[in-house]
Amino acid sequence: MVSLSNRQMSLERLRDQVEESLENFVQDRLTKSDAPAMSLARDMLLSGGKRYRPTVALLAYQAAGGKDLDSVMDLALASELIHTATLIHDDINDQAKTRRGLPTLHSAHSQSHGIIAGDYLFVLGFGLGGKFDARIVDRMAETSANIAAGELLQIKHIADLGTTPEDYYAIIDGKTAGPFASACSCAAMQADAEETIVNTLDEFGWEVGRAFQLVDDLLDLTGDPSMGKPRGTDVHEGKMTLPIIHALTMLHGIEREQLADVLQNFSDDRWGELTELLESAGSFEYAKQLIQNHIDRAQESLESLPDTDAKSLMIEIAKLSRGRRT
Amino acid sequence: MVSLSNRQMSLERLRDQVEESLENFVQDRLTKSDAPAMSLARDMLLSGGKRYRPTVALLAYQAAGGKDLDSVMDLALASELIHTATLIHDDINDQAKTRRGLPTLHSAHSQSHGIIAGDYLFVLGFGLGGKFDARIVDRMAETSANIAAGELLQIKHIADLGTTPEDYYAIIDGKTAGPFASACSCAAMQADAEETIVNTLDEFGWEVGRAFQLVDDLLDLTGDPSMGKPRGTDVHEGKMTLPIIHALTMLHGIEREQLADVLQNFSDDRWGELTELLESAGSFEYAKQLIQNHIDRAQESLESLPDTDAKSLMIEIAKLSRGRRT
Repeated sequence: MVSLSNRQMSLERLRDQVEESLENFVQDRLTKSDAPAMSLARDMLLSGGKRYRPTVALLAYQAAGGKDLDSVMDLALASELIHTATLIHDDINDQAKTRRGLPTLHSAHSQSHGIIAGDYLFVLGFGLGGKFDARIVDRMAETSANIAAGELLQIKHIADLGTTPEDYYAIIDGKTAGPFASACSCAAMQADAEETIVNTLDEFGWEVGRAFQLVDDLLDLTGDPSMGKPRGTDVHEGKMTLPIIHALTMLHGIEREQLADVLQNFSDDRWGELTELLESAGSFEYAKQLIQNHIDRAQESLESLPDTDAKSLMIEIAKLSRGRRT
Repeated sequence: MVSLSNRQMSLERLRDQVEESLENFVQDRLTKSDAPAMSLARDMLLSGGKRYRPTVALLAYQAAGGKDLDSVMDLALASELIHTATLIHDDINDQAKTRRGLPTLHSAHSQSHGIIAGDYLFVLGFGLGGKFDARIVDRMAETSANIAAGELLQIKHIADLGTTPEDYYAIIDGKTAGPFASACSCAAMQADAEETIVNTLDEFGWEVGRAFQLVDDLLDLTGDPSMGKPRGTDVHEGKMTLPIIHALTMLHGIEREQLADVLQNFSDDRWGELTELLESAGSFEYAKQLIQNHIDRAQESLESLPDTDAKSLMIEIAKLSRGRRT
């Protein structure tokens, strides 16, 4: 702990607050008639997620001038519950065997258990979020509806070598950036911030969310097994991530044909080939540059806000996204 | 239409109002960024559901003294959206091929599409319901969380010949009666009714919901293919419904052994055997008597309310549950 900077310490503290509130929430549900459902969902919910969405929500609330962190905590938890619900269902759709180094919920139990546990967390998330103002509920519902639209677009483009960068951004905006933006702007609404401040924090959320997803997609190509999920999951599933889309555009002739062949007939013994092609196309560098651009824009979006600890920590979290390994 | 009684005409009119509002809601979503998700979910949503939950909600609102039907319509629609979400996911869990005579959503598209479409409708349902008072949102979330608990209990008792009537009621209270009760009592809350009236309508919902589910389970054993789903789905899946639980208790010796064998090794050529055993045990009569009891209790629960058209129609809908074929 001593090696952490002050800012990281503060982020840690905020994350601990989220964790504690989440654990209290779980304990409370275990005393109610839906306890069997929470017993099932608990492991996934408390299995060491990084809590980026709720942490960013708490910071956005403070950066927007909010003073009573307790009044926004349920909203922050709602974002984490809904996020976890989508992860459980994604794991079924992706037939993923592990997440964060542990068996996925549907692998440990059954697919039906996975579907029900995800539904349950959706419901709890909206139960918490539904107590806020109508415009917050509206935004949450719109955002969650767009998660579904993003997922459908992703399925549509599986193994589609003609997928464009615009398609890619539509997918990640629906699935990842939208929920980050919603967490930030709803928290600002709860702080009773002016519309321009809500929009500022919304913009921050979009940019940070994009950076996070781009890092995720890059890690899938470069990461190591200590990430908790095997490298190359996306490639095996035919998901068209930005480095791959970029390489398909940049390469020509025999290299382009080779890349198409690698993608269409991928197996683990072709990692070397794939990495070489992506490097030759400059696709890793391109993705890293885009990540930096999103981080820069996230930082710039906050310029109009007064300098506060919360603002500094938001910039810190944006920068951290780049360096994370999991 | 001329052969319908006045009351049925009124129920039809109310159902038509629900249908029209639902269609308008669907049309509106098709103009938004989540249109691809609604395109997918639309067929299931508009494929001729009977709209019992929203219709009962509108009636409960009026019976509780509410005057502005528009102010409760979104709540009524929320109950139908959430109900449809659970049907889509149930069909995946049950591996059902058809519903209402049409291919189930996951059969027509893919399992992933089914999971996403269900999630989407959950979200829209809570988006609509989340705009109401906190105690209404609380009740909706609690009810939906208990749907999950009921489903898990049902899975636990699959093919369990030791399932008790108490287990059965815990399952159907979670999955069916709870949502009926929630639709009624939330509508009464929205009408600003006194607590005693809210409780009265809550009680009505529980009893009608139980009657509906018992009829469903009886139809599974006695129904014909015109129901839209094949007879005996529950038996094939090993679901322990009340007539079966009753017969397992009542039969002894060789008949009990034969019933266990029929259930454990069921195939369509054993229908005659199963029906004979259930008749011999008096299980059809028993289930019919319980249905009548729940209808009677539903009717009695309303006695303290002033006589209104809405109250009469609620009694009508309770009685209709007994005679329905689908």
